[in-house]
Amino acid sequence: MKIGILGGGQLGRMLIQSALKYDDEFYTLDPASDAPCSTISNFTQGNFNDYETVLNFGKNKDVVTIEIEHVNADALAEIENQGIKVVPNSAIIKTIQQKILQKEFYKAHDIPSPEFQAVWNSDEKITMTLPFVQKMNTGGYDGKGVQVIKNEEDLQNLWKEPSVIEKLVDIDKELSVIVARNEKGETKTFPVTEMVADPKLNLLDFNICPVFLHEDTQKQIDVITEKFLNAINSPGLFAIELFLDKAGKVWVNETAPRLHNSGHQSQEGNANSQFEQMYRVVKNLPLADTESLGYSGMLNLVGAEGYSGKVIYEGMEEVLKLPKTYVHLYGKTETKPGRKMGHINVLADSKEELMEKLIKVKTMVRVIA
Amino acid sequence: MKIGILGGGQLGRMLIQSALKYDDEFYTLDPASDAPCSTISNFTQGNFNDYETVLNFGKNKDVVTIEIEHVNADALAEIENQGIKVVPNSAIIKTIQQKILQKEFYKAHDIPSPEFQAVWNSDEKITMTLPFVQKMNTGGYDGKGVQVIKNEEDLQNLWKEPSVIEKLVDIDKELSVIVARNEKGETKTFPVTEMVADPKLNLLDFNICPVFLHEDTQKQIDVITEKFLNAINSPGLFAIELFLDKAGKVWVNETAPRLHNSGHQSQEGNANSQFEQMYRVVKNLPLADTESLGYSGMLNLVGAEGYSGKVIYEGMEEVLKLPKTYVHLYGKTETKPGRKMGHINVLADSKEELMEKLIKVKTMVRVIA
Repeated sequence: MKIGILGGGQLGRMLIQSALKYDDEFYTLDPASDAPCSTISNFTQGNFNDYETVLNFGKNKDVVTIEIEHVNADALAEIENQGIKVVPNSAIIKTIQQKILQKEFYKAHDIPSPEFQAVWNSDEKITMTLPFVQKMNTGGYDGKGVQVIKNEEDLQNLWKEPSVIEKLVDIDKELSVIVARNEKGETKTFPVTEMVADPKLNLLDFNICPVFLHEDTQKQIDVITEKFLNAINSPGLFAIELFLDKAGKVWVNETAPRLHNSGHQSQEGNANSQFEQMYRVVKNLPLADTESLGYSGMLNLVGAEGYSGKVIYEGMEEVLKLPKTYVHLYGKTETKPGRKMGHINVLADSKEELMEKLIKVKTMVRVIA
Repeated sequence: MKIGILGGGQLGRMLIQSALKYDDEFYTLDPASDAPCSTISNFTQGNFNDYETVLNFGKNKDVVTIEIEHVNADALAEIENQGIKVVPNSAIIKTIQQKILQKEFYKAHDIPSPEFQAVWNSDEKITMTLPFVQKMNTGGYDGKGVQVIKNEEDLQNLWKEPSVIEKLVDIDKELSVIVARNEKGETKTFPVTEMVADPKLNLLDFNICPVFLHEDTQKQIDVITEKFLNAINSPGLFAIELFLDKAGKVWVNETAPRLHNSGHQSQEGNANSQFEQMYRVVKNLPLADTESLGYSGMLNLVGAEGYSGKVIYEGMEEVLKLPKTYVHLYGKTETKPGRKMGHINVLADSKEELMEKLIKVKTMVRVIA
């Protein structure tokens, strides 16, 4: 089957890597000539935001999917019109890629998400009380396009673009759940993972699984995933990012209509990875079992501050000596501060061992140039 | 690093697949334009038995390795002369690719292997008593080039080529152990696996791990692997195929100087796979831990008798519904009787469950056209 992917980054690369155990042809589209997928797929250099480029790319494919949501959804709609399958469908991509529509989607489907105000126009009066969160309507990614407005003084920093103004949640835990649905309507959910963010770079840092949750918390999450999977009306794999607040209530922060950083530990930590699951969704195959095989965790390898250029993974050889420690690099030759260059997964027999191993690995390796 | 592989078959493909989690460039050489590696590496169509072709292929590589042993070893020796690393080195490839030299190697290093007679010339008198095994000196592969001469009548079928005449072992179990050594001299051994051969096609059928062996048997194997790893004087990953005879003695049947079918269950069954280990050998990195994660087994997907042409994996969708069952196809579009098209790995909690699952899967899927 000819599978086209919009985006040629690490998510696409790991999807293709995983799917090399089947017999398909992968095609990728990315503006960067040295994109992580460029050497392992039939690669087209081009802009996935451009209508004509996406339309042309879709031609002669059996199915088109995405590994980034900021793509030209109108072109995907036209590809669907022409009878080519798009996973997830253009309607849900369009909804999710705009924060305002995404929030309205939660509201319409009774999915708990923090109270919000849609600001299409920068002269609209903000009715939300301080402090609050501002999320740009489009283009947010890896923590970019999100800011906290704490006080009156911060108000002058408000972005003057369409955005969501959202009530600040008093966060106890940041959780994530990866869900999948195939065309037949079969659904499968991965065990919940917990994220620990780096406060400086706002990039996911550690991600651990399983998370022991209060029965009521798990129940809230189950209700959310069920409502979400019923509401989307599309095959796809989605990462639902959740907040558990200090009062014990679960809120949807946001959803990605694709493979997600918070699911990387599934590569060695679960019976099947999010990449295998995504492949099965794309091909409309029976969904894979998602059972945790034990304690697993992930840390991102992010370009260190002050280093740009040809990447060096300092300390990596020592990391490779550690048992049940799995290095995943993304085939990027150039590092810059904050760039996601790879990740390391770790397996352990207890949560204590897991945290010790993750912290140890984090101190051992540096992404420099 | 630029890594060149002689051969572009499934072993190379799975090596590259596994190594996509690091940052290297893979180059492959194979006579078939549609070789499994052709779409996922920098591919050269050419004959790996041809001196000039191999020499040219080696140019500008940082390291050259093999995924099949029937290659031009003289060209590899010249590549070494030119200062390019070859893994395993040309001398050990040359020894192993000729059954007579391989047998003499075992003898020289006191590694137990069935008694034999080297027959360079077809008029030489055979002194071995019947029944015995004849193995062609060169070119044997996947059970080809091996025959049992049972009685006087069979003697007329003797191949008139240089060969090894070997004493027939009264086999209790066929075992395999995959060993690795890096340039620094570090060594690691995978847990022993047991093979169950299909008597008709003589292709490996099931392969299971772990195998519960008598303490003395394991000790014999440990001595063999230690002697072998000391004797080779080369980095490399090797599959040592063993016979356990009915008297409890372990014999080396033969060795492959490369990735091996008997190690495929390591993809999901061990902390790291033979492919990860091979990558680390090639790059001279610390060797990976090889711990079994539980009961695992593999069955080959072999082209069914009577079918040639565009492959269809009948029953595959049902197989994909089974938990902890992993399908690995090799990207081959055409099937023919006996052709290795893929394999399926299975994980289980007990040996009984493992055998049940393997037999169930075997009855579910057929490779037809």
